[in-house]
Amino acid sequence: MSEKNNEKITSREVDFAKWYTDVCRVADLVDYSSVKGSMIIRPYGYAIWENIVAILDKKFKETGHVNVQMPMFIPESLFNIEKEHVEGFAPEVAVVTQGGKEELEEKMIVRPTSEVLFCDHFKKIIKSYRDLPVLYNQWCTIVRWEKETRPFLRSREILWQEGHTMHATAEEAKEETLKMLGVYQDLQENYLALPVIVGKKTEREKFAGAEASYTIEAMMWDGIALQNGTSHYFGNGFAKAFGVQFLNQKNELETPYQTSWGVTTRMIGSIIMVHGDDYGLVLPPQIAPIKVDVIPIGDVEDVVEKIEKELQEKEITYFVDRRDKSPGFKFAEAEVKGYPIRLEVGKRDLENGEVTIVRRDTLEKIKVPKEEAVSKMVELFPQIQKDMLEKARKRRDSMIYEASTYEEFLDHTKKHNGFIKTKWCGDEACEVKIKEDTTYKSRCIIQEVQDGHCVCCGKDAKYEIYFGKQY
Amino acid sequence: MSEKNNEKITSREVDFAKWYTDVCRVADLVDYSSVKGSMIIRPYGYAIWENIVAILDKKFKETGHVNVQMPMFIPESLFNIEKEHVEGFAPEVAVVTQGGKEELEEKMIVRPTSEVLFCDHFKKIIKSYRDLPVLYNQWCTIVRWEKETRPFLRSREILWQEGHTMHATAEEAKEETLKMLGVYQDLQENYLALPVIVGKKTEREKFAGAEASYTIEAMMWDGIALQNGTSHYFGNGFAKAFGVQFLNQKNELETPYQTSWGVTTRMIGSIIMVHGDDYGLVLPPQIAPIKVDVIPIGDVEDVVEKIEKELQEKEITYFVDRRDKSPGFKFAEAEVKGYPIRLEVGKRDLENGEVTIVRRDTLEKIKVPKEEAVSKMVELFPQIQKDMLEKARKRRDSMIYEASTYEEFLDHTKKHNGFIKTKWCGDEACEVKIKEDTTYKSRCIIQEVQDGHCVCCGKDAKYEIYFGKQY
Repeated sequence: MSEKNNEKITSREVDFAKWYTDVCRVADLVDYSSVKGSMIIRPYGYAIWENIVAILDKKFKETGHVNVQMPMFIPESLFNIEKEHVEGFAPEVAVVTQGGKEELEEKMIVRPTSEVLFCDHFKKIIKSYRDLPVLYNQWCTIVRWEKETRPFLRSREILWQEGHTMHATAEEAKEETLKMLGVYQDLQENYLALPVIVGKKTEREKFAGAEASYTIEAMMWDGIALQNGTSHYFGNGFAKAFGVQFLNQKNELETPYQTSWGVTTRMIGSIIMVHGDDYGLVLPPQIAPIKVDVIPIGDVEDVVEKIEKELQEKEITYFVDRRDKSPGFKFAEAEVKGYPIRLEVGKRDLENGEVTIVRRDTLEKIKVPKEEAVSKMVELFPQIQKDMLEKARKRRDSMIYEASTYEEFLDHTKKHNGFIKTKWCGDEACEVKIKEDTTYKSRCIIQEVQDGHCVCCGKDAKYEIYFGKQY
Repeated sequence: MSEKNNEKITSREVDFAKWYTDVCRVADLVDYSSVKGSMIIRPYGYAIWENIVAILDKKFKETGHVNVQMPMFIPESLFNIEKEHVEGFAPEVAVVTQGGKEELEEKMIVRPTSEVLFCDHFKKIIKSYRDLPVLYNQWCTIVRWEKETRPFLRSREILWQEGHTMHATAEEAKEETLKMLGVYQDLQENYLALPVIVGKKTEREKFAGAEASYTIEAMMWDGIALQNGTSHYFGNGFAKAFGVQFLNQKNELETPYQTSWGVTTRMIGSIIMVHGDDYGLVLPPQIAPIKVDVIPIGDVEDVVEKIEKELQEKEITYFVDRRDKSPGFKFAEAEVKGYPIRLEVGKRDLENGEVTIVRRDTLEKIKVPKEEAVSKMVELFPQIQKDMLEKARKRRDSMIYEASTYEEFLDHTKKHNGFIKTKWCGDEACEVKIKEDTTYKSRCIIQEVQDGHCVCCGKDAKYEIYFGKQY
């Protein structure tokens, strides 16, 4: 089917990790840099991020949020104010100690996240109940000094957004935490075509300083989990530590309640690892930078120009591959890059007045009259989007296993990757034992339960919960 | 005319520097943070930046550029490759020496600009003439460890874009340098309503490592210059230093030619200092986050709702100020925030079927039948935009002085701020003498000349040039 680019991609079955980095490189998504642990996001990869940013930014604004920009440096003394938070992040921060050829009097932490900067600012701008809620978001990069890195999944510098909000009541803050989790779920399912499991992190796995952390868990093609977004309810712990207070309607001082929530370029890693195949990337139409790759075969310029014009009118992003290369080379590249549709405009097909639409997700070829090519594609995009989500959901569901005894649990972890749905007593000791025995970590709590037994210790179960290996 | 917020703003005539920081603070554009030398860009200020970004990003894409993301850290050894560049930037860089609790083997420079990172990447991706031109842009923040800082003008962390391009020929690279300068001029004149002078920097003032630097110079209300954007032609100096080469059509190795160009949030400083007045900010409609501030006076909800609906239909950004505050307070705030139009919907006016439009730029009040309010505003926006540019141009032109003798030059610098248009021999010694005698620096060379004498040494003049004090 294709001739050249494929050689460079390892098969998923042979070595999934190698397949992943091959796709990242061959599809021109990223490049490695001379900066150890940091990646370069190349134009094609960045264009996917730009599309995701545009979708999310619109949703944030529709839900009343505004963007701000905080400094990237945090003075060490400010960073040290909230104890749990410091303990959580200190082992992985980068530190600036010199500025303008001089040793700094106070070290500066390159932000690993910005809770403390927002709290410091909130203290100044929140005076009265009239100032609440404060619904802020920031698009920026953060730094976490990781030892082992992989493109999009784990990198020393990460592109992300971080929402930070303050509310007059705990109820309102909790509502916000779940509302933004819902925005993330909507993004992932309806735009990225990623089926996700949404739940609450255990005490052990929650964010440093949070009262409750909620998570969006996706399962990659190989059955390994990727945490694709988190939303945290802070209670008023940070606000107290930073002395943020407001006068309520009765003119009494109160401490407000806080949330934060974030997603990163890691989601691009999920798109690759959920939808990709041995030919390369497969992009959902909703976030594909180029929806249609038009490949002329022979002298068909007049037909191509008509189609081009129609694509422009319908505002469909496209690329006409007029390069001096063989059709086979171009087909292979269209597959590597994961354009949702490639449109082959060939002399032979045109003798019957036809052109050929090739769906990237199914590789299905559909011949249509040339006049109907664009309207057919318009019809196909939502279908492709839907089919990609369903296909991913089916594969994921086939890799969710249930276990009611520890023997069953261990048996699954030996036989196959995937998520294990089970019950848990809520005791951290059991969570730790499972991790030590199997490397499986708790993904998220789905719900509280009244019946059944903990899969590990056999005592009364409190929660229904997922376990799985993670990236 | 207004009652409260004004008290907080110093008069321009009394203390322009204080006026500027007052406007930045009172209009909620920025806040100071606990991070010395870094500012917080608050939602209203950031929304202006978002509008500028949207305009520029579209223009960059229309001219064939794509966005990428490079790391924010530069290993010291990489930073040290191009000598002039290092000398130019070393005194003001921030340096990371610790990562994840360990001393780093190699220090990391927080990027002050990204030429070296782009060159390092270009070396890997450019192989053949077919790969050229490479037309890249990056939106990011950079760090320069300034001693004295002022909001938007000079800050340790700066939001900006940096274009980096590579071309097969010097001619093409020079053309790109000027094309992007043209994009900046278009942005500043037609969107920010800033009249600008466009020219070439002297050898002394050019960018560290560039062969030629072009600049966009704006004059603030007080006659002081602000460099609002630069575009650099690098020749192939960096490319040689980094070993970037490509095979030309004859299969011979050649070194490509390079450009870079950038603008920053400093432009927001220009908008404030060119258009603002003693009442506060004055925003050009093209980049105002809120174009219309609707102020109901009395119970006029039915009329306001009709107007609101029409504003929505016409996609005009607006805010209805329904807060429990006096009209006077709201008028003052509308002035502070610089909304291009405030629409007063009052019971008394409505008895005659009228509402009052108040232009922020002229403070002119225009009574119109309530049914015509929105269509009148639609008509006024381009007029306001045009009038703001013309008003600024007139003021600037009135502060451009000519000098043909050094006595005249010195006389101007003693009498008034402003630009001095004069002739220069091209000798750095004269440029330095002028700076030492007057603190005036060369702004830019306008053109080469064949006649006249250098204002400083009296020898034959080579250039027509502007001098001025700068922020």
